[in-house]
Amino acid sequence: MTQLTTLDHPFDELSLGDTLVSRGRTVTEADIVSFAALSGDWTPLHTDAVAAAAGPFGARIAHGGLTIAISTGLEFSLLGEAVNILAFYGMDRVRFVKPVFIGDTIHLRGEVIGLEAKDEKRGVVTVREELVNQDGGVVASLEKRTLYRRG
Amino acid sequence: MTQLTTLDHPFDELSLGDTLVSRGRTVTEADIVSFAALSGDWTPLHTDAVAAAAGPFGARIAHGGLTIAISTGLEFSLLGEAVNILAFYGMDRVRFVKPVFIGDTIHLRGEVIGLEAKDEKRGVVTVREELVNQDGGVVASLEKRTLYRRG
Amino acid sequence: MTQLTTLDHPFDELSLGDTLVSRGRTVTEADIVSFAALSGDWTPLHTDAVAAAAGPFGARIAHGGLTIAISTGLEFSLLGEAVNILAFYGMDRVRFVKPVFIGDTIHLRGEVIGLEAKDEKRGVVTVREELVNQDGGVVASLEKRTLYRRG
Amino acid sequence: MTQLTTLDHPFDELSLGDTLVSRGRTVTEADIVSFAALSGDWTPLHTDAVAAAAGPFGARIAHGGLTIAISTGLEFSLLGEAVNILAFYGMDRVRFVKPVFIGDTIHLRGEVIGLEAKDEKRGVVTVREELVNQDGGVVASLEKRTLYRRG
Amino acid sequence: MTQLTTLDHPFDELSLGDTLVSRGRTVTEADIVSFAALSGDWTPLHTDAVAAAAGPFGARIAHGGLTIAISTGLEFSLLGEAVNILAFYGMDRVRFVKPVFIGDTIHLRGEVIGLEAKDEKRGVVTVREELVNQDGGVVASLEKRTLYRRG
Amino acid sequence: MTQLTTLDHPFDELSLGDTLVSRGRTVTEADIVSFAALSGDWTPLHTDAVAAAAGPFGARIAHGGLTIAISTGLEFSLLGEAVNILAFYGMDRVRFVKPVFIGDTIHLRGEVIGLEAKDEKRGVVTVREELVNQDGGVVASLEKRTLYRRG
Repeated sequence: MTQLTTLDHPFDELSLGDTLVSRGRTVTEADIVSFAALSGDWTPLHTDAVAAAAGPFGARIAHGGLTIAISTGLEFSLLGEAVNILAFYGMDRVRFVKPVFIGDTIHLRGEVIGLEAKDEKRGVVTVREELVNQDGGVVASLEKRTLYRRG
Repeated sequence: MTQLTTLDHPFDELSLGDTLVSRGRTVTEADIVSFAALSGDWTPLHTDAVAAAAGPFGARIAHGGLTIAISTGLEFSLLGEAVNILAFYGMDRVRFVKPVFIGDTIHLRGEVIGLEAKDEKRGVVTVREELVNQDGGVVASLEKRTLYRRG
Repeated sequence: MTQLTTLDHPFDELSLGDTLVSRGRTVTEADIVSFAALSGDWTPLHTDAVAAAAGPFGARIAHGGLTIAISTGLEFSLLGEAVNILAFYGMDRVRFVKPVFIGDTIHLRGEVIGLEAKDEKRGVVTVREELVNQDGGVVASLEKRTLYRRG
Repeated sequence: MTQLTTLDHPFDELSLGDTLVSRGRTVTEADIVSFAALSGDWTPLHTDAVAAAAGPFGARIAHGGLTIAISTGLEFSLLGEAVNILAFYGMDRVRFVKPVFIGDTIHLRGEVIGLEAKDEKRGVVTVREELVNQDGGVVASLEKRTLYRRG
Repeated sequence: MTQLTTLDHPFDELSLGDTLVSRGRTVTEADIVSFAALSGDWTPLHTDAVAAAAGPFGARIAHGGLTIAISTGLEFSLLGEAVNILAFYGMDRVRFVKPVFIGDTIHLRGEVIGLEAKDEKRGVVTVREELVNQDGGVVASLEKRTLYRRG
Repeated sequence: MTQLTTLDHPFDELSLGDTLVSRGRTVTEADIVSFAALSGDWTPLHTDAVAAAAGPFGARIAHGGLTIAISTGLEFSLLGEAVNILAFYGMDRVRFVKPVFIGDTIHLRGEVIGLEAKDEKRGVVTVREELVNQDGGVVASLEKRTLYRRG
């Protein structure tokens, strides 16, 4: 159980309970507009300040998909050359727990919770991740499954 | 069980088994670069043509997060004004089944598989979705949980 | 004369006087920067806060071309799969009536004002559109001519 | 009647018949994706290679709104500091004459066709513009009305 | 020694001491996010408002590379068709002197300080440039070497 | 003299001769368009396929400023949380040696060539960098000066 400074280790060098903490990123209005643009999802909750002000959160919030996108980049910052990563398998139990507002700064903390050897060359690593805002509140949680090289 | 032309119905007007089919979108090199940029995830599998040529798929492929982002936009096209949508709760069983290559055209098909009333005003709709490429192959599948107005 | 929830009808199912109202979109500083970038139009009125403060509107305003671009996306939200649209023919009487400032939220309202059959398979639909801000002020008006399938 | 190297002259120094020719710009797949993203207009004719191949032009084409956006940037290249421009008034007779395909290179040629003094300080300049592709074909034509300083 | 309104002259028509002044551009939060995205440089000083608030400048600042990128666009505004430019050779003595904060408006002033004929058709022009903010403070200085046509 | 896997060390832990090698990145047409857009530099050599085909390199090439921007992102991949970086001071001897064409894949190699203590808390690190394409050719070289924490 180690605090990892990079996730770019071979499968066999990771252990259950290894943890990671990423840098932070401020979620800007520009990010939300860019995600609406790239995805094509212009739901008024994210892109119409008047409608959002009258809605459940009182202001525009980040798309869930943007939060996930940002989590992948925060992870990548811990990967360097990423030579041990083969493929992104999937995600389970993705939950958007609190709204992410314009100006919030989020970082990622994670823990290795699954290590399944697949064959002699490859293994699947499951990391439980939480995205945390500047007040320490968890805004999203998820489990990512990634295919790694073994050695 | 209806083929829906919009997802923008109140919770109480949706039924288990209702289906939807979206327009298609061609996934371009520009989309992959934009997603790498916005997310910050420059894993060589997505952004280094030389490394990707030597990797498991033989070419650069779309990020899983991009596939999900696109699915939200394809869904939005079926929403019009989106007046019945309150919040995106989460996703389960997200699986990236086949690679999405540059130039692939994907669309979304879905089925309402869960309808849970939350209180008198709101309910959670679960839609099982598949992203399908131009050859009919399923590239990703997932279950999305969204909070709707009831009436 | 119907309030349309989608514009994606065959030519022969539309009538003069049919109306439409779109969702809204907040025009952000990021949108103006993105439009300057994509178009290459960096006129100081749109991109230099100091020069714009000394100019006729007292602040940076959105490009006319951005207002038109946004109108096409607001329209698309009313199209769903867009299976009846063949081509965008042109525009007449495009007028930028009031400035659109950073933070304004605009929506589109329209009325079918022209229906010209072109041949047995195709017809030209003219829609008079107004872009309206959060205070109910018309910021731009235009007439769009689009080629539709007939049946 | 002069071939102008800049459009950034005071109203009173322009003459009917003055002409201009801009640099060229290649319209890329990335431009079309960016315009779909920024505008929110994902009509399959522009963004779905499979649907577009089966459509009237046999391939994806640029949005009309993108062609107009590009025209404003090509114009801006002839403006330098743009100190004489006060506001963009509107457009008339905008016509999308031929499709613009991915990889086409377009430039703008124009002619001053209207000069209306508005008051002692300002005048409206009307420029008839054509966007021309690499084969000399006119892809779009329009008339732009812009408010200029007089002296 | 002339105040140039365009840099697009043949090498032999430029003189040592010729000067230039560009339009201004406001550096927005969106620009910094876009540059982080395009470059892949998410150093917290530029992208994490919490970390930057605790850092040497007390707030997020623009990347040095963004300042340089903007300088090339401000220059391009003085080039029109750019028919005399052959290639960008390099830069010397690039110094980031003061921070550029979100909302600062910068312009470029330059002076031709070197003219080296390379052969009968081409020459290298060296321009000493300063980027200046709205308070008259120099934020960056550099020397650019560009290959020009001679006649 | 070590091959560094991260640049994120305190000043006093770096040594002259320490080297670094980054991941690669394919420079796409989308990147060149995005850089033209963000910078405002639409010089035909980068953005007009017809003009570039007739020019010195026979095809569009990447902007020098884009190459530098990419170098900063490749560096950032070696930084992780970047906790030891205080500010980017400047660059010397920036040279664009060979053209970077669309589709080229470049990576960065560097060597620490200067270590100047500034005071008890801070020091300036100079890294000589080369950007190298898929054929091993150096496309650009430069020296970057960065302010680091000492301990």
